[in-house]
Amino acid sequence: MILAALFTSVGINLGLCVLFFVLYSILRNQPENAEVYAPRVVAEGKERRTTAFDLERLLPSTGWAKAAWNLSEDDLLSIAGLDAVIFMRIFVFSLKVFSFAGVIGVFILLPINYEGDQLHSIDLANLPNESLDKFTISNVKDGSNWLWVHFSAAYVMTAVVCYLLYLEYDYVCSKRMLYFYASKPQPHHFTVLVRGIPRSREGSYSESVEKFFSDIHASSYLTHIMVRQTSKLRRLIVDAESMYKKLTRLKSLRNERQRFSSGGFLRLFSQNDTSVEKCEKQLETLEENLRIQRSGASSVGQEVPAAFVFFRSRFSAATAIRIQQSLNPIEWVTEQAPEPRDVYWPFFSSSFTKRWISKLIVILASVVLTILFLIPVAFVQGLANLDRLEILFPFLKSVLTLTFVSQVITGYLPSLILYAFLSMVPPVMKVFSNMQGYISHSESEKSACSKMMLFTVWNAFFAVVLSGSVASQAEVFLDPRHIPERLAVAVPAQATFFITYVVTSGWTNLSYEVTRAKPLVKDFLRRHWWNFLGGELEVPSLPYHREIPSILFFWLLGSTYFFQAPLILPFVIIYFLMGFIVYRNQLLNVYKPKYETAGKYWPMVHNAAIISLVLMQLIAIGIFGLKKLPTASTLTIPLPVLTLLFNEYCRKRFLPNFQNYPAESLIKKDREEQNDPAMPDFLYNLASSYRDPAMKPTRLAAETEPGLSTDLLSLQQRLEID
Amino acid sequence: MILAALFTSVGINLGLCVLFFVLYSILRNQPENAEVYAPRVVAEGKERRTTAFDLERLLPSTGWAKAAWNLSEDDLLSIAGLDAVIFMRIFVFSLKVFSFAGVIGVFILLPINYEGDQLHSIDLANLPNESLDKFTISNVKDGSNWLWVHFSAAYVMTAVVCYLLYLEYDYVCSKRMLYFYASKPQPHHFTVLVRGIPRSREGSYSESVEKFFSDIHASSYLTHIMVRQTSKLRRLIVDAESMYKKLTRLKSLRNERQRFSSGGFLRLFSQNDTSVEKCEKQLETLEENLRIQRSGASSVGQEVPAAFVFFRSRFSAATAIRIQQSLNPIEWVTEQAPEPRDVYWPFFSSSFTKRWISKLIVILASVVLTILFLIPVAFVQGLANLDRLEILFPFLKSVLTLTFVSQVITGYLPSLILYAFLSMVPPVMKVFSNMQGYISHSESEKSACSKMMLFTVWNAFFAVVLSGSVASQAEVFLDPRHIPERLAVAVPAQATFFITYVVTSGWTNLSYEVTRAKPLVKDFLRRHWWNFLGGELEVPSLPYHREIPSILFFWLLGSTYFFQAPLILPFVIIYFLMGFIVYRNQLLNVYKPKYETAGKYWPMVHNAAIISLVLMQLIAIGIFGLKKLPTASTLTIPLPVLTLLFNEYCRKRFLPNFQNYPAESLIKKDREEQNDPAMPDFLYNLASSYRDPAMKPTRLAAETEPGLSTDLLSLQQRLEID
Repeated sequence: MILAALFTSVGINLGLCVLFFVLYSILRNQPENAEVYAPRVVAEGKERRTTAFDLERLLPSTGWAKAAWNLSEDDLLSIAGLDAVIFMRIFVFSLKVFSFAGVIGVFILLPINYEGDQLHSIDLANLPNESLDKFTISNVKDGSNWLWVHFSAAYVMTAVVCYLLYLEYDYVCSKRMLYFYASKPQPHHFTVLVRGIPRSREGSYSESVEKFFSDIHASSYLTHIMVRQTSKLRRLIVDAESMYKKLTRLKSLRNERQRFSSGGFLRLFSQNDTSVEKCEKQLETLEENLRIQRSGASSVGQEVPAAFVFFRSRFSAATAIRIQQSLNPIEWVTEQAPEPRDVYWPFFSSSFTKRWISKLIVILASVVLTILFLIPVAFVQGLANLDRLEILFPFLKSVLTLTFVSQVITGYLPSLILYAFLSMVPPVMKVFSNMQGYISHSESEKSACSKMMLFTVWNAFFAVVLSGSVASQAEVFLDPRHIPERLAVAVPAQATFFITYVVTSGWTNLSYEVTRAKPLVKDFLRRHWWNFLGGELEVPSLPYHREIPSILFFWLLGSTYFFQAPLILPFVIIYFLMGFIVYRNQLLNVYKPKYETAGKYWPMVHNAAIISLVLMQLIAIGIFGLKKLPTASTLTIPLPVLTLLFNEYCRKRFLPNFQNYPAESLIKKDREEQNDPAMPDFLYNLASSYRDPAMKPTRLAAETEPGLSTDLLSLQQRLEID
Repeated sequence: MILAALFTSVGINLGLCVLFFVLYSILRNQPENAEVYAPRVVAEGKERRTTAFDLERLLPSTGWAKAAWNLSEDDLLSIAGLDAVIFMRIFVFSLKVFSFAGVIGVFILLPINYEGDQLHSIDLANLPNESLDKFTISNVKDGSNWLWVHFSAAYVMTAVVCYLLYLEYDYVCSKRMLYFYASKPQPHHFTVLVRGIPRSREGSYSESVEKFFSDIHASSYLTHIMVRQTSKLRRLIVDAESMYKKLTRLKSLRNERQRFSSGGFLRLFSQNDTSVEKCEKQLETLEENLRIQRSGASSVGQEVPAAFVFFRSRFSAATAIRIQQSLNPIEWVTEQAPEPRDVYWPFFSSSFTKRWISKLIVILASVVLTILFLIPVAFVQGLANLDRLEILFPFLKSVLTLTFVSQVITGYLPSLILYAFLSMVPPVMKVFSNMQGYISHSESEKSACSKMMLFTVWNAFFAVVLSGSVASQAEVFLDPRHIPERLAVAVPAQATFFITYVVTSGWTNLSYEVTRAKPLVKDFLRRHWWNFLGGELEVPSLPYHREIPSILFFWLLGSTYFFQAPLILPFVIIYFLMGFIVYRNQLLNVYKPKYETAGKYWPMVHNAAIISLVLMQLIAIGIFGLKKLPTASTLTIPLPVLTLLFNEYCRKRFLPNFQNYPAESLIKKDREEQNDPAMPDFLYNLASSYRDPAMKPTRLAAETEPGLSTDLLSLQQRLEID
């Protein structure tokens, strides 16, 4: 019965999904695509990058899934870093929560909903979708005492989620600390980024940094390195690199043609020779320019009022970060330096005012984007309504009467289009965050991640639920007393849409992820049409700002529809189960981390879970009110309050550990390494690890590095004194 | 003309005020009341405490005002401390702002308002109060271009206030730093308060503090002192002291009677002798009890998981405060210790949970108080409406027809009653803040101060303006789009009431302050009826939490009515001018600071000024809308945004300096004292300055102090090693 109802409304989608799924498990093993499916493994030299043919590899297999499933957390940690482990904890945690919610939802709430007969009278006269509504809370009679079961479910669910959230936060926090204890000395633990260096009359920025820190932190200050204006240099390098690529391609083309023409053909392509020569000349000029710019950039005039300051110990660096340095709090602003590979260099060149203005512009742009995005959402809503479509496009009438077409359009297309539009947003948000003045990739992606989360909740949830104009949506939030009521009316009505969304968007997305459709097509094109093989193998990194919000959105759906439409739960559980295997495989074979935040993404996940819970509770308050059970509605009010208090406690208990390491751990680590013979070498090399990559000689030209020598000399002297 | 209109409505009040004022300037010089008027000076031994008669002193004189006026800021600083100087800066700043606003308001806006004739038609038929409305913006014609002058005035006023606020914040900040540089070594700069000490299995709290800090801050940790459970002890001391007072009084009574009865009377009062003996016995038991409790309190079992930890230098103490100490952020929580005299001991005994619960209760209680307070406010509103009063109390009809009585009731009584009710709130708020778990008097008073500010704005402004039920007021704030419009309708209507309020409440309050009516009456009663002179002279401290909110409320009135009803400005200016002289005199002669926050009250004043400005701007938006000048209304919208951005900048630029001292200053101060021969002595005495006063021997019994000796021994050893 349930299955029948399901297939009526989501049958096609399921079919399409399964198709997709089979497709990828065949593709998964194509031998020539190791670069596509395991670029990381290839890059590490563990897999051949050959085109040799191997029959066994063409057969579909589930070996990869098994390998991913069997991987232990420690192995994952050593292969992909702590961020990957924490990322996988989202799935583990979600599976725990939703398997509990699933048992309650499917075995207790679903029968109760089905047995109610509030919707009896209108059941038969309506659309096939209507049959799913029999499984939602709408079918329970108004004022029925059965609603108390839903009420208890809301309380139990909140308690379980909070308990699990606490355990998980604790676990992640201890993982983070263990990771810190186990780590080798890392440059960024000893480094402080200083900004807002005041302009001094007597000397350069570099001199005033030296003076200030050797005065205040006399015993622990080691050395510093100034950040320099390198935007011009960076542009030149980009030009030179693209020129170099062009040259290589032209040369390989020429070689091939030479082989071809040596057979006796006329040298028809001699013009190609001249273009190669031209290219070579241009590259030479560029390299000359680069050399001049580089020596120019190391001069005093090109200094930016920002510096990396290096300390002897982690504790003294932490001290310099936490204490306000100067009398004027907006001068000598210190903060934890990002990892060297994580530094986002372009933004250092900008002035404070420029940063401030671009921040304001970015906030404005994000808001505008969020609002404008309602247009495609409205379009999606229109598609779901066939009658309106027929009125708009009368010539479609004959096509739309076909059952298959109308099913695809109403059932599948809306959520696919929504998903397609949604997937265009993360890169835009990333660009916005880059413009906002973060000095590390990780901070910028974290900011993009939270922007995306708000965006997703607003546009994929509220905009769909409260369909209508921007103004009417804003109305709801400007009148806070009626939020629960409005949501209670609107949310259950969209249950079917969101069940479809989980299947079409969630499941499909995972299939898309594991088949790596885009790189596959690109690779295929490159091999067969462009005929250009090799070049550098690019190993991508997992775009957390794209993945985390979309995963957490399913969390939101699962928890808000938990007691209203428990039918969504099995789909959500399957999503998280698939996700668990797929992403483990991807982290193992495809992605290579670009940076390591040591779990700083978790507080975001925690907050999103709390927001989902509170939303669920607010809807519960509204629904119990609408269902004429005001006592239950009133008794639910303490629930969000308690949840927020719990969140407040967690903030106090765990969050500080995600921002800074405590004195206890820092000193323990420092003491351990006090007598390590490798430490002096490490300290000596600290400064060079924070060189701007634009200042390093490229493979195109091998010059000596200017500007570093004097700094290093004084550092060596200082280290020898000890 | 203006004066005539004024006298019609506030004539009586002015008369009463002047009466009051004359009264105090006579009273001011009564010779026998030096204790009342200059308890501080008497306590410092600069004034005699005699009852000798001096004719000159009976004559009214303005000498005290002259003395207060001529006092320089440096003198005030040396006499009353930095907090007093910063307190007086409120008046200086307000005078600057309102003399500027006054010029614009009275010479530009007032004539414009008067020349408009919007109210012409209804002018003559109404109450006498109506005539004042001719001077408000209500009299300007709808859509008139003259309103652009008001618009410019709002912009100019905002710019001037922001500029002056910036200058003032800068000035106060630099004063604070100079004060820090000029100060002698102060115990609280070297002391860290540690709370949340975890229970260890091996030993006492004291041992784990010793272990933890000598491990982590090995080079800078000096010693510590545990906080002990002394609530019982404190109760005993209070009992003993009241018993001691009773005994002294009984004895003095007996002596007098003996003198009297020695003349030949019968010893009628022998029962008095037995009661003296009884008292003496009780006191002895109490003292014995005290001695036992004291030795008990110094035992390990009575330790509270809190300690004062002392460091060798200011910088290392600051380091310990800013860095999270332990892996668990809610254990070993460090914070800046308050001054020894500022410590609020009773709260240490409470557990974390008790503190948390009492905090929640206090928040709830404050909200309830704020809401319940609407009842007296509604009563006040009722009084202003004579007709309603006549209906309620018909027997008053004949009395109310008298012009004088009706004038007093409508003009003077409402604001006096409001003020009387308002003056009862600060002590309640202080009690609330004490219950909230602050460990210093200053923090608790600061919290009471901000509670009072919110309370005043809500109950004395919004409740009066938006007269009506709580629900209808809440309605306004739950519908944020219509706030400016609602305020624009309601605020100008209450202009007359608030002008009266400035005179009756503000001026009267200052007169009351300078005459010190309550202590005067008390002193008089004590001398003439109770016949009990002497005892300890109590020097009060200025209750900032009472004074600052009430002063800032006049700021709010002045700035919100600035362009609507500029007639209020002269009254506000006179208030601040009087306040400047009166409070200087009081700080000089009456109050003695109980603690020194070094200007930490200023950020509150700044915030209140910003809130007042934004309120003024919101009302402007609403009024221009109502007056059918939508362009002006729209063009005013950037104003609150800019003001809030300015506030944000000030928060970044100045606020950190009010929370902690920067590393630069701390190290400079530490270095200066490195070779000071007095330092070892100071460090040696550090621990004893933070003894719980309940543990110190009282004047009632002289015992040796237990528990301190061992700590001090080890400290001496540690100091000798260096």
